[in-house]
Amino acid sequence: MDRPTPAPEIASEREAVRAAKAAWEEAVVAPVLAKHPERKASFATVSGVELERLYTPADVALDYERDLGFPGQFPFTRGVQPTMYRGRLWTMRQYAGFGTAEETNARFKLLLAAGQTGLSVAFDLPTQMGYDSDHPMAAGEVGRVGVAIDSLEDMRVLLADIPLDRVSTSMTINATAAVLLALYIAVADERGIPRRTLSGTIQNDILKEYIARGTYIYPVEPSLRLITDIFAFCRAEVPRWNPISISGYHMREAGATAAQEIAFTIANALEYVERARARGLAIDEFAPRLSFFFAAHNHFLEEIAKFRAARRLWARIMRERYGANDESCKLRFHTQTGGVTLQAQQPLNNVVRVTVQALAAVLGGTQSLHTNSYDEALALPSAPAATLALRTQQILAYESGVADTIDPLAGSYAIEALTNELEARARAYLERIEERGGAAQAIRFMQWEIEEAAYAYQRAVESGEQVIVGVNRFQSEEEEPVHIEIPAFAELEAAQKAKLARLRAERDATRVAAALAAVREAARGEANLMPPILDAVKAMATVGEISDALRDVWGVYRPE
Amino acid sequence: MDRPTPAPEIASEREAVRAAKAAWEEAVVAPVLAKHPERKASFATVSGVELERLYTPADVALDYERDLGFPGQFPFTRGVQPTMYRGRLWTMRQYAGFGTAEETNARFKLLLAAGQTGLSVAFDLPTQMGYDSDHPMAAGEVGRVGVAIDSLEDMRVLLADIPLDRVSTSMTINATAAVLLALYIAVADERGIPRRTLSGTIQNDILKEYIARGTYIYPVEPSLRLITDIFAFCRAEVPRWNPISISGYHMREAGATAAQEIAFTIANALEYVERARARGLAIDEFAPRLSFFFAAHNHFLEEIAKFRAARRLWARIMRERYGANDESCKLRFHTQTGGVTLQAQQPLNNVVRVTVQALAAVLGGTQSLHTNSYDEALALPSAPAATLALRTQQILAYESGVADTIDPLAGSYAIEALTNELEARARAYLERIEERGGAAQAIRFMQWEIEEAAYAYQRAVESGEQVIVGVNRFQSEEEEPVHIEIPAFAELEAAQKAKLARLRAERDATRVAAALAAVREAARGEANLMPPILDAVKAMATVGEISDALRDVWGVYRPE
Repeated sequence: MDRPTPAPEIASEREAVRAAKAAWEEAVVAPVLAKHPERKASFATVSGVELERLYTPADVALDYERDLGFPGQFPFTRGVQPTMYRGRLWTMRQYAGFGTAEETNARFKLLLAAGQTGLSVAFDLPTQMGYDSDHPMAAGEVGRVGVAIDSLEDMRVLLADIPLDRVSTSMTINATAAVLLALYIAVADERGIPRRTLSGTIQNDILKEYIARGTYIYPVEPSLRLITDIFAFCRAEVPRWNPISISGYHMREAGATAAQEIAFTIANALEYVERARARGLAIDEFAPRLSFFFAAHNHFLEEIAKFRAARRLWARIMRERYGANDESCKLRFHTQTGGVTLQAQQPLNNVVRVTVQALAAVLGGTQSLHTNSYDEALALPSAPAATLALRTQQILAYESGVADTIDPLAGSYAIEALTNELEARARAYLERIEERGGAAQAIRFMQWEIEEAAYAYQRAVESGEQVIVGVNRFQSEEEEPVHIEIPAFAELEAAQKAKLARLRAERDATRVAAALAAVREAARGEANLMPPILDAVKAMATVGEISDALRDVWGVYRPE
Repeated sequence: MDRPTPAPEIASEREAVRAAKAAWEEAVVAPVLAKHPERKASFATVSGVELERLYTPADVALDYERDLGFPGQFPFTRGVQPTMYRGRLWTMRQYAGFGTAEETNARFKLLLAAGQTGLSVAFDLPTQMGYDSDHPMAAGEVGRVGVAIDSLEDMRVLLADIPLDRVSTSMTINATAAVLLALYIAVADERGIPRRTLSGTIQNDILKEYIARGTYIYPVEPSLRLITDIFAFCRAEVPRWNPISISGYHMREAGATAAQEIAFTIANALEYVERARARGLAIDEFAPRLSFFFAAHNHFLEEIAKFRAARRLWARIMRERYGANDESCKLRFHTQTGGVTLQAQQPLNNVVRVTVQALAAVLGGTQSLHTNSYDEALALPSAPAATLALRTQQILAYESGVADTIDPLAGSYAIEALTNELEARARAYLERIEERGGAAQAIRFMQWEIEEAAYAYQRAVESGEQVIVGVNRFQSEEEEPVHIEIPAFAELEAAQKAKLARLRAERDATRVAAALAAVREAARGEANLMPPILDAVKAMATVGEISDALRDVWGVYRPE
């Protein structure tokens, strides 16, 4: 483990406090415990870190300049920007998307009017999996968990009236990230918006799809190659775009602990770094545009420590291994409050959970934030619930004062001890992954670790040791009925199919065929895939067709 | 100001960090500011503390053992109990009361069934002001802001089926505190519950009524004498009862800053201490049962610091001035989230505010907590809103992990710097109050300071410098309609009057008259007033009649 050693003068103060603490435990605590035992035998975090009764200077080894430093400076423990939220608040970016492009466009406008500062697009499963809305695999799923995008026609509608040169857009898309990015660029090109002004993020993190989320298409190796193609293309053409958002979120949702979330995310990131270097990109050419995506769960202290530990660990590894420059060492991340923590019972309780989680993300120094809507455990977020979720961020930003001084919990003995501990645990996991040859080789290992953690958590819930308010304790006898509007998915699917049929009839079939042939050709060789994909979307080839062209060449991934 | 001086070895580390911070400000921050100024010119807390951009070890002078110490040990900065919430969670005590004693009793049972762990009674204004429900001054106010209690008959109903020997009860009652406490004891006596087993609190803090809240009856001097009578009686007869809850809450609600809230509360407490000593009580005979009551407002960092600063300052003053023992130095307090921070617009936003405030109270080490209902800015709390408010506490207690280690934010440079600063500012205020002869002489001074602070805040809101989400920014065009049930106050008043008429007709008038004469007699002399008041309530004298007996002797307070 990589534990810091303190300077000698600090060590002497720590020894004095350690002795005083031992005296307190013996003289003051022990007699109380003899009469009144504590509530629980163990006060462990979800990562299994056994919390001390009391943290003091004796419980945290810290060299201020080496371990914390200053915002905007290595190792970035206190934040990646010099003035953090005093300069600019985090981006309030609510993930939204459902039904047709028209409906999602309307929700985006509502959120922007309500004060949201960035867009975040949810796509439906067929779009994520590279199936058009008229594909048999798409049946029943069109527009269900996000917006259905089949072609440039849909993308034009989705982005209508959105100022692409001023709003940054995040797209949660992975296996088909190249195609959706191409569609976004194609709309900008049509409108004469320079590519250099576009800013946003595509998730494009395929490794966590194999590990936890499941929306993969192609085998590991060509998928990783496609990602490095996107890196190279973005660097040259769309330099303000983050070509990847390496995501711990979904692994956490699947049951990973906070320590695993840090470790597996960084492990995946290091795999992408290695692949990019193998393709000849220099570290400081692409690493500054790597971005990250974490969850914010309920354990307030551990979650704050998690964000700070992840930032320091990434900086240290990038410096140690690659001698990377400061820009490459900055871990910039988006955060979403924990979807799995939302409960269908007593849904307004979720407002409380989301507030605590969002506060942890802000105190952890996130660059952007999605706060879940309280009704998401029941259905797609309603407009009032989505607005309240945004208001939650605004109250934290403008009323709570936590944005007014940088990294306000730094120095807290408990937070710093947990930050050290999570960094050490994540390092230990990274070693185990590297023993297996890195993340691409350790997919099964990470899955197994996550499954084990999920199982332990589930058992704690079932035994009642882990209380979930309103679910396994404090249940209500009478629940307030919640009114849920189910969108008309069947109608939507029919409309989307009709639109596709018209498109296929009207477009220039020869141009489409040629463009798809060029995609296949590039997939077989070494050339960057982005230019032929961009040509194909402009020729009105669909998401499904372009994905099929790549399937033809690469085949599909089959889990072990 | 009472700033600590650090040990020399710590001083050398602080100097190094101070130099590094200056270098960072010059080399890293200054160039950023030249291009991107910060969001605001000033980042001050509501107490006017200008927040540093960044807090580091150089910004907080701290001697661990002297300034923080250990939970359950002087100066109690880290909490008054050795194991704090690991031993027992704070008491979840929702202030409730409306309409008749029957209705309030039903709400209490609902809250206890939902997992609440203590009761807190709200009384209507006539009860607080010593008017019976049939008094002309009571018209339109009976049962409106709390429960109407006229006599022992009502108190029996209010407490029906409540296990008085196991539940602790807080009563927000001041000018008529002696009468309501007598009624509570009378019910216990009737049920054969030993007085020594009763636990609870009466607010009984008349000074803050003159300063901010306004429900006073008698002039200052006899009011203070009545309070010391209650101290002496409780000590002898109801030793587990807190005979006073010295309240910063209402001064804060009236516009006081966090620093004023600490200072004025402690100033009032010191006045009570002086009065009790003047009546011959030794400090350690009554000080251990003094309890306190603070607000939790929006500024997360300052509020956490406030609780910690108040605890340390009280301990230090009690030790310095009176050589008080540890029990007397412990500042134990109840907290309520800030009523004035609730907004009628977009009422569910209040769930977010209450969560942040409640979290601050818990991180500040409160002994008990009331969380406001989100609809309180509109009407009396509805049952679902009251339940959600309690769920908020349960989620913090059982899901957030903050109760699992003691005083988790200790050591945070920002929190400790604010703790020092608020303690110093409160000390400075105390000096100014003592120059005026203490709290009883400084009522107008404190009012003036509060008015000035309230005015400054109001101006900041009007200028938009202080954002209130949904009110002066991020307003909604269409508000969700909120359904409000207005209780049938007129019917309630008529019923309460009929009950009183029957009582007056049926009771033993001679016994009542004799009991009231004994109250007057005691008020004229030096004897403890509690025994004759207790006799009077048992003779079925009403709250209004007993109050009138005291008015006859003492007259009423007229503000300057």
